[in-house]
Amino acid sequence: MQEKGSISIHTENIFPIIKKFLYSDHEIFLRELVSNAVDATQKLKSLGQLGEFKGELGELKVKVSVNKEARTITISDRGLGMTAEEIKKYINQIAFSGATEFVEQYKEKDTAAKDQIIGQFGLGFYSAFMVADNVEIFSKSYKDNTEGAHWTCDGSTEFSLETTDKADRGTDVVLHVAADSDEFLEPARLRTILTKYCKFLPIEIEFEGEVINQTQPIWAKQPSELTDEDYTKFYQELYPFSEPPLFWIHLNVDYPFNLTGILYFPKVKDELQFSRNKIQLYSRQVFITDEVKDVVPEFLMLLHGVIDSPDIPLNVSRSFLQADAAVKKINTYITKKVADKLAELYRKDRAGFEEKWSDIGLFVKYGMLSDDKFYDKAKDFVLLQNTAGKFFTLSEYQEFVQANQKDKNEQTVVLYTTDAEAQHGFVQAALDRGYDVLKLDAVLDSHFIGQLEQKLEKVTFKRVDADTIGKLIEKEETTESVLSDDDKTKLQELFSKAISNPQMHVQVEALSPQDAPVIITVPEFMRRMKDMQRAGGGGGMQMFGSLPDSYTVSVNANHPVAQRVLSAEDEASQKLARQAFDLALLAQGLLKGEALTAFVKRSADLLTA
Amino acid sequence: MQEKGSISIHTENIFPIIKKFLYSDHEIFLRELVSNAVDATQKLKSLGQLGEFKGELGELKVKVSVNKEARTITISDRGLGMTAEEIKKYINQIAFSGATEFVEQYKEKDTAAKDQIIGQFGLGFYSAFMVADNVEIFSKSYKDNTEGAHWTCDGSTEFSLETTDKADRGTDVVLHVAADSDEFLEPARLRTILTKYCKFLPIEIEFEGEVINQTQPIWAKQPSELTDEDYTKFYQELYPFSEPPLFWIHLNVDYPFNLTGILYFPKVKDELQFSRNKIQLYSRQVFITDEVKDVVPEFLMLLHGVIDSPDIPLNVSRSFLQADAAVKKINTYITKKVADKLAELYRKDRAGFEEKWSDIGLFVKYGMLSDDKFYDKAKDFVLLQNTAGKFFTLSEYQEFVQANQKDKNEQTVVLYTTDAEAQHGFVQAALDRGYDVLKLDAVLDSHFIGQLEQKLEKVTFKRVDADTIGKLIEKEETTESVLSDDDKTKLQELFSKAISNPQMHVQVEALSPQDAPVIITVPEFMRRMKDMQRAGGGGGMQMFGSLPDSYTVSVNANHPVAQRVLSAEDEASQKLARQAFDLALLAQGLLKGEALTAFVKRSADLLTA
Repeated sequence: MQEKGSISIHTENIFPIIKKFLYSDHEIFLRELVSNAVDATQKLKSLGQLGEFKGELGELKVKVSVNKEARTITISDRGLGMTAEEIKKYINQIAFSGATEFVEQYKEKDTAAKDQIIGQFGLGFYSAFMVADNVEIFSKSYKDNTEGAHWTCDGSTEFSLETTDKADRGTDVVLHVAADSDEFLEPARLRTILTKYCKFLPIEIEFEGEVINQTQPIWAKQPSELTDEDYTKFYQELYPFSEPPLFWIHLNVDYPFNLTGILYFPKVKDELQFSRNKIQLYSRQVFITDEVKDVVPEFLMLLHGVIDSPDIPLNVSRSFLQADAAVKKINTYITKKVADKLAELYRKDRAGFEEKWSDIGLFVKYGMLSDDKFYDKAKDFVLLQNTAGKFFTLSEYQEFVQANQKDKNEQTVVLYTTDAEAQHGFVQAALDRGYDVLKLDAVLDSHFIGQLEQKLEKVTFKRVDADTIGKLIEKEETTESVLSDDDKTKLQELFSKAISNPQMHVQVEALSPQDAPVIITVPEFMRRMKDMQRAGGGGGMQMFGSLPDSYTVSVNANHPVAQRVLSAEDEASQKLARQAFDLALLAQGLLKGEALTAFVKRSADLLTA
Repeated sequence: MQEKGSISIHTENIFPIIKKFLYSDHEIFLRELVSNAVDATQKLKSLGQLGEFKGELGELKVKVSVNKEARTITISDRGLGMTAEEIKKYINQIAFSGATEFVEQYKEKDTAAKDQIIGQFGLGFYSAFMVADNVEIFSKSYKDNTEGAHWTCDGSTEFSLETTDKADRGTDVVLHVAADSDEFLEPARLRTILTKYCKFLPIEIEFEGEVINQTQPIWAKQPSELTDEDYTKFYQELYPFSEPPLFWIHLNVDYPFNLTGILYFPKVKDELQFSRNKIQLYSRQVFITDEVKDVVPEFLMLLHGVIDSPDIPLNVSRSFLQADAAVKKINTYITKKVADKLAELYRKDRAGFEEKWSDIGLFVKYGMLSDDKFYDKAKDFVLLQNTAGKFFTLSEYQEFVQANQKDKNEQTVVLYTTDAEAQHGFVQAALDRGYDVLKLDAVLDSHFIGQLEQKLEKVTFKRVDADTIGKLIEKEETTESVLSDDDKTKLQELFSKAISNPQMHVQVEALSPQDAPVIITVPEFMRRMKDMQRAGGGGGMQMFGSLPDSYTVSVNANHPVAQRVLSAEDEASQKLARQAFDLALLAQGLLKGEALTAFVKRSADLLTA
């Protein structure tokens, strides 16, 4: 015995589900109802264009009004309207998408019209019951010789339907607002919702005697119709009080997905100002969300602007979005567009590009780090800036330093500072030696350095204070020491005693007499390990426990202080060594707290000694 | 003519809706099906207890298995089972909640059982179609003399149903996995999902021969049954490799909402380690999410642990959650429980409380700042620590300093340091004067200071470097100046010339000869304004443009350096003034970059002069 049948749905349970699951924000009801009104109006316009509707279109505004005393919100349109039969079909049978049937009927005639009229929000009408305990529809079809219909439903699954006198074509939806939804009787609240969701709907929306939308937002136009001023003006509308954008990209693609939009590069002075969620997502000019995470690649989240695509699945979760094929394609497309735009800017106006670098550098690097395809495009225009403020591309810089900064193993050693002020003495020493020093002080630069070392051949990066100037880039030549080996050993012992700190590894080095008597350096490798540990990353680095700070103290054998420390009386010698060491600590920003207070006091006393 | 009728739903459209809207993560299907199996098993157990089922319960495990070759996942239980009629009723009619009817039937008999058996996931079964293109049910009811039933559906709305030979009571759901859902044929993936959602389900779940869950998680037990070891062991299970928690709170409330759970205070050494989303939300032992934002008060997000409540609405949006009455009550309840626990710890073991303060201080302050009710409770146990490491409550501290630190207007001036090391010289000066200095160097302390100033009467906070020591707490007495007024004016001019920086406001002051020759202070009010601006807050402060840094340079009229500067030759005088100023800059951490390099070089040269 086998039986076949159809799965059915008990409607008494569907309303709670619509309320609870389908829409998360109650305010969405207004977006849904106004969108429906706009759809009905656009459909009538399409029918007019197709010659199916021969009457007078007249004024086609959608009107939204609220009556606080009567506790009603009314949404009226002069669109298609519905007969009683159509209400039965489209309203009483939930999830029967009217738009689909409409399209089926006309699909032979006009494919462009089809795209335009597929309603996004099939179940939208019922969202009215999120805020209303009773909903009425008054409707009159555009078709000749039809009677007006009046439908009522109190939120149960029972409806009533009767004929009514309605003079004008179109539909009025009247919501009798429920007691727990008083907020939606406030005109200010409704205006906020309308402005949020309906600001760019293609049919005029009137509220309190004012049209609240722009029916032709610039992203829906062709770039060729638009001037720079149009773009900056639109930016000002979206983000009042913002500085003008640096530049923008007009997105416009039909295949394999439909997407329009404008992405702006904001002027960003410091990281604190970076605000995500500045890109608004629309679907056919209806605002959907400003959380575009996963639609836009992570590193482009810093951009501003709008994206309009009917191909992005709505109301679905993050993890689903990530896996969605259309979203992946959109991601790739946007990334490519951005890389192309940057390459064009660089090619056409190098000076202007350099000027904007402080604003765009961070996210170019972010992009290079997070997307290999973007790296491949950006490696030709990513800029490095040296302490003198001059900009170089990667290949220009390698060219620039290779004569001077190759070590004995033919490695190009790129010197950098993470803080030109704090590392001033070391930067100066490098410049005096004829080396160039890059400023790599932005948030992502430590990762960027790592990436460049992997990608570029025979290039190593070293922070200026990673070694004494003679060893920073190891060449064949060495400076002769004026001290005997015995004296060197003695000097090392004297300083170790004066310093007496196991984290300070004292060594005697033959530096120039012009160099400081003592120099403290931080070995590159150890410093990077510490930095990684501090950043909490580094794959299980925590396992090794906290790494100690490690410093190299280079005592300059050729500085007069060395001679003095060797020849002075025990106490005076230790005092001198200690003072020379304190100056080295100062230069490294390591003289702090009690030691600094004592140093200052000692130095003040010396002023009047 | 009026017509009445029922709203109906066209089922051909319901599957896409279930797929798209109802569940965001596809992996949820397994949670739903296993939950259903557990429900059916628990219901049978309940019937046994009620005497309605008199047969042998036998083994009641739910078994999950996967067959990669056959592309099937099977979920089997030995619960109630269904007859063909029941399948028609419960499966073929979507959203007809079987659990509700079951409860109606037995509600007179046992209310406790009712709570236990209301299924959360009415529509859950159909989530199978998110990953399967064909689903089969093999079922046999627990009732005597019933035939087995075999139901098949290919994801359209057509099903087929026939009798089958099934030896054993219960239900097997067989999913024929769709081509785009291959990932769910990987045993490792299924294990991960089961562990995530089903780890604490009340019926044993077997996968690959192993039981993957604990049927009696400790939060479902009574605190009186549990030892400290049970709690710390559970914590280790939830967060392996974590340090043991500081303490915990067992939540257990029936009315006006149902909530159980355990909240742990983690040991947190620095802010970087703070991780939110460490609280897991369950509903009747089924894992729901670890995003508990809005369920738990913001400032308690740093806690770890589990919360289990059937009263928190699921699958609804953040903004809806915030407005939900049950959620608000849960929020209040948790806040109160946490405050009570802290008060108890403080009362019962002050020493232990102080020891834990570095871990709990931040969020006690966070709580006080964000919740007035919490402030009122916490003001009696919030601790302040001075530079000597001693702890005080607010009232103890006011008591402690009031004799010494009242100014001439009867205001108690509380001195603090935001960085005991960088402000060492100033801290030392205050301590030497017999004042006490608080360490207020945590992230929220600047806001906390603002709050205390508002709440406490006649108490002002001043950072130790806000003024020279004599003026920090203004008393009646003053130190006499050894200089004439003319000399003071001349000294002021000489120093202004040597410093020549408009941000440095030079004044001559009669300090002790033991004090530094020059002291740079940062006025409290201006510093706070700058801090607020830097933090980006301060309500429209950005309007005023960036505030300049402002420093007060106090030249000590009574220090021998003052005499020297007045009497020396022009060049020597300027050099001396400049050096004394540099030392003051050093003490304030303001001597940087080129100026510091030059200072170090000059001082090094002096060593061998």
